[in-house]
Formats: sequence, C-alpha cells, structure tokens
Amino acid sequence: MPKVVHTIAELHKILQPLWRKGEPVGFVPTMGALHAGHISLMKLSKAAGNVLTVVSVFVNPLQFAPGEDYDEYPRDLGGDVKVAREAVVDVVFAPSVAEMYPRGFVTWADQDKLTEKMCGEHRPGHFRGVLTVVLKLLNIVRPTHAYFGQKDYQQSVVIQRMVTDLNLEAKIHVCPIVREADGLAMSSRNAYLGPKHRIEALVLHQALVRAQELVAGGEKNVKKLHAEIKRIIGTAKSAKIDYIAIVHPDTLEDVNDVSGKTVFAVAARFGKTRLIDNVIVE
Amino acid sequence: MPKVVHTIAELHKILQPLWRKGEPVGFVPTMGALHAGHISLMKLSKAAGNVLTVVSVFVNPLQFAPGEDYDEYPRDLGGDVKVAREAVVDVVFAPSVAEMYPRGFVTWADQDKLTEKMCGEHRPGHFRGVLTVVLKLLNIVRPTHAYFGQKDYQQSVVIQRMVTDLNLEAKIHVCPIVREADGLAMSSRNAYLGPKHRIEALVLHQALVRAQELVAGGEKNVKKLHAEIKRIIGTAKSAKIDYIAIVHPDTLEDVNDVSGKTVFAVAARFGKTRLIDNVIVE
Repeated sequence: MPKVVHTIAELHKILQPLWRKGEPVGFVPTMGALHAGHISLMKLSKAAGNVLTVVSVFVNPLQFAPGEDYDEYPRDLGGDVKVAREAVVDVVFAPSVAEMYPRGFVTWADQDKLTEKMCGEHRPGHFRGVLTVVLKLLNIVRPTHAYFGQKDYQQSVVIQRMVTDLNLEAKIHVCPIVREADGLAMSSRNAYLGPKHRIEALVLHQALVRAQELVAGGEKNVKKLHAEIKRIIGTAKSAKIDYIAIVHPDTLEDVNDVSGKTVFAVAARFGKTRLIDNVIVE
Repeated sequence: MPKVVHTIAELHKILQPLWRKGEPVGFVPTMGALHAGHISLMKLSKAAGNVLTVVSVFVNPLQFAPGEDYDEYPRDLGGDVKVAREAVVDVVFAPSVAEMYPRGFVTWADQDKLTEKMCGEHRPGHFRGVLTVVLKLLNIVRPTHAYFGQKDYQQSVVIQRMVTDLNLEAKIHVCPIVREADGLAMSSRNAYLGPKHRIEALVLHQALVRAQELVAGGEKNVKKLHAEIKRIIGTAKSAKIDYIAIVHPDTLEDVNDVSGKTVFAVAARFGKTRLIDNVIVE
C-alpha cells in the first residue's frame, strides 16, 4: 500500500533522507480521479529508476475559471489510493486546500505569451492557477523527475517554460497520451459524458488522425488542414469548438505551413463537458 | 579574494558539494554599489555560521518601473568585489541580464494585496520584478539563509510572504538599517544626492525618530503622528512625499491606532532621487 499523507510536514519526513542522499525522486502531480493515463505516468516514474515516486492528488481551486466544474470535479481518494497501489506508487500526497493555500496566501506565478491562447484564451486564470500550484508542488516534493501527460499539451509547454525560467531543478517528462480502445483520450472529465456525447466525442481523435494522415500524404496547407479538422468535429451535432490550433511545439505560435514538427491541438465542448486532445506531427 | 562567477553553471559547481552535504549556505542578494548596509548583511551571514556566503550583484531590469533610474543605477563590479573581500564573502555571483533572462523568458511571480500600496503603488511593476528575480536567485543559490535589509521594509514582507506561499526552503532574515553618522539610511541611491539634497534628506530619519519619541510618550493617534511626520519632512523645501505609511508589520494594512508593533515607513523624492526609510515601533 502506498503511504497516504495529507500534510507537507509528513511528506517531508519521508523525503528528507532521500534529498540528503541525492536519491532520484519521481513525481506525478494529479487532480485525482486517476485513470490509465495517470497510471502510465506512475509506471514511467517507477521504470525510470526513481527510488521513490510521489503522486499528488489535489483538486486545485486556483486553476478552475469562474463557472467551471470545480465543485463537480470527481473526488475519490479511496479509489485513487487503490489505483496508486496497483501502480506500485510509494506515496500519495493529498493535501487540503488549507494546507496548500493557508490564510493570507497572496503569491502566484504567471506567464506572458504562451498562456494567452488556446486553453488560456478560453479559461481565464487557468494557467496562473496551474503554474502556481505546480510551482508549489515542485518546491514541496523537490523531485528529480516530474511526469506530465501530453494530453494537456499547452500545460506541458507552459510548465517546462516555467521550470526553465525560474531555474527549478526537476526534469520535466511529457508522456504519451493514453487512449480508450476507440481512440478517446483518457481524461477524468470523460466520466461526465452521457452515452450520446461519449460517442460524439470521438470526432476529436478522428479529426486529429485525419490531419496526421493528410500531412503524411504531403499536405502542408494550414488552412486546408484546419478546415478538414473543423469539418470532422462538425459531424458531431453537439460539438462546440473552443479552438483548433496548428502550432509550433515550443512557442505555440501558429505555423504558416506544416513543414517542421507541428502540434495539432483541439478543444471542444460536448454538452457541458469540455474535452481537449492533440497530436504531434513530425 | 572572493571567487567571482558570472554563470549559473560555475556557481553550481561551487555549491553542489555543499548542497549534498546539507551544509548551511548564506545568501545576500544585491544590486551592487555595495555600502555599509550590504556589508552588515554579509557579516551577519558569516557570523551565523554559514559555511559559504554568496553575494549576488545584479541590477535587475524587471524591478525598475518605466522612467526610473535603471540606466543610471551605479554599477562598479570591481569596487563591489573589493567590498565583498573586506566582508570576507566567499562568492560574488554577477550574472548578465542574458544569463538571468534568456531569450524566450516569459514567467514571473507576483502578489496581491501586499504589493498594492506604499512602494508598489508608486512603482508599477516593481514588486513583480523583485519577486521574480528573488525567486530565481533563491532557486539558483538554494541558500539555507538569505539576508535582506530592513530599509526596504515592504520588500522584506513581500519576500517573506512569497517564501511562505511558494514553500521555499530558505530562512529569510531581515536585518537592521545601517545609517550614516547623521542618521541617513544607507542606500546606493544616496550617491545621486547633491550637497543640498543630501542635507535635506535627513528629514526622513528625523521625522521617524520624532514619531518614535511621540509614541514612546504615549501618543497613539495615527492622524497626529502622520501630520507630525508630514510637517517635519515638509521642512525640507525640495522634499516631495510619495507616501507616509503607518502600518501593521505583517499585513502592511493601515493601523487605526498605534497600540501593537507598528511600522512607520516613508518615501520621498529630493530632486530626482527617491529615498525610503522606516522604523519599527514596538
């Protein structure tokens, strides 16, 4: 069984001896509702030879924009601990909101440029919340390696940039998207989908696969690729597109044509459920 | 002679063995133009038993508001190294702007509330720049103890709050103001003062001493104390007051009366030179 700790002090008691010895520590930050995507991150941490892997389970209020699903977000620590046990994770760190943001808390981290588009444009304050909590968690856990899912592609770029800009020590690993058998990207928010939306949501993956095929076939024209992604997502009646982005993998700037490594990222709502997906085309 | 290093990589070569052994490292962040105030911080670090003391010398462009004295700010690394040698400091870290803010740098730290008044109100963006550079420097040096001057009182509160909020490890020490023989608080900006303004600037200290005397004599009325400080600063013809603050030492909120520990802080301009001073009244 993993050790479940709720306070920073308890966690530090476990980590202190490892820091001192310079032992590699792996870290997987999550908001819980753990699924196969999270499990893959935990397993990658174990396989990489980290002597200890910490999974944090914390539904971070700061990263939910006004009107979003903070209250509804699935919470099941008991279930998460079971998942962590199966992944042979050593420590589950599940702090309270008061432990993370005590009375008088006023400090935050944020970014220009990278956070202004895609999910940042549609979720005001989201990345400020993400950067602040990840900065805190990296300072609390002081891992050698931290594992993030490629599913939140913009998040992974933003975090990597913060780690570079703020001279943090952790090495950031961005790990492949894990999908359901039919292609839907794993997400804790998939649990919100009713049967109709669950089927319709497949258009995201289908559109990205189609774009990838077109690029493989020689298509470089961004407008055509964008139109084709839009068309395929549009085949789902309930789909409301937040954005279709065809961008540089590091700068997240729109590319003029698909020549080098390019990220295709999409966000759309199916009913009340907002889903994202992406593919990196080399 | 202290070792003078210009890159993070060089600095880390020196620090790595100490981090590993868990040895205490002291840190004094400065913008150079070192004076007796800085020397007192270095000596406190040495006296506290830190096995190594690092002084950083970096004129941080981010913390100068538009139109401020970034270009004119005194720079004399040779002189600073001499001062550091006298203080028996081990390492002078003098990075370039490009080393601290490389191409693509977009991340920053900031705060609500504490930064909104006093110097924050009069120097837009100042504390965002201070917090960002101090966060970076603390991550680069990873000191056990960091030493700041009480002269920048609001800065010391803001930094202590950031260290708490972001779960940083360094212990922050706020060290007494060092003054010229006639009472003027030591500041690199004193070098800007012509003879007339140099004499007039004494009103800051005089006003604070007078407030302290009045409180010692039983005066608790904030309006009366404020008026008396204003009157004394006003005796200097060229003085233009930025603010007179009578505030709680931790929250920096205006107090209703001087009953508990209270900070009296002032900022005023003499010609083009902006000076600050403060006193903590128990």
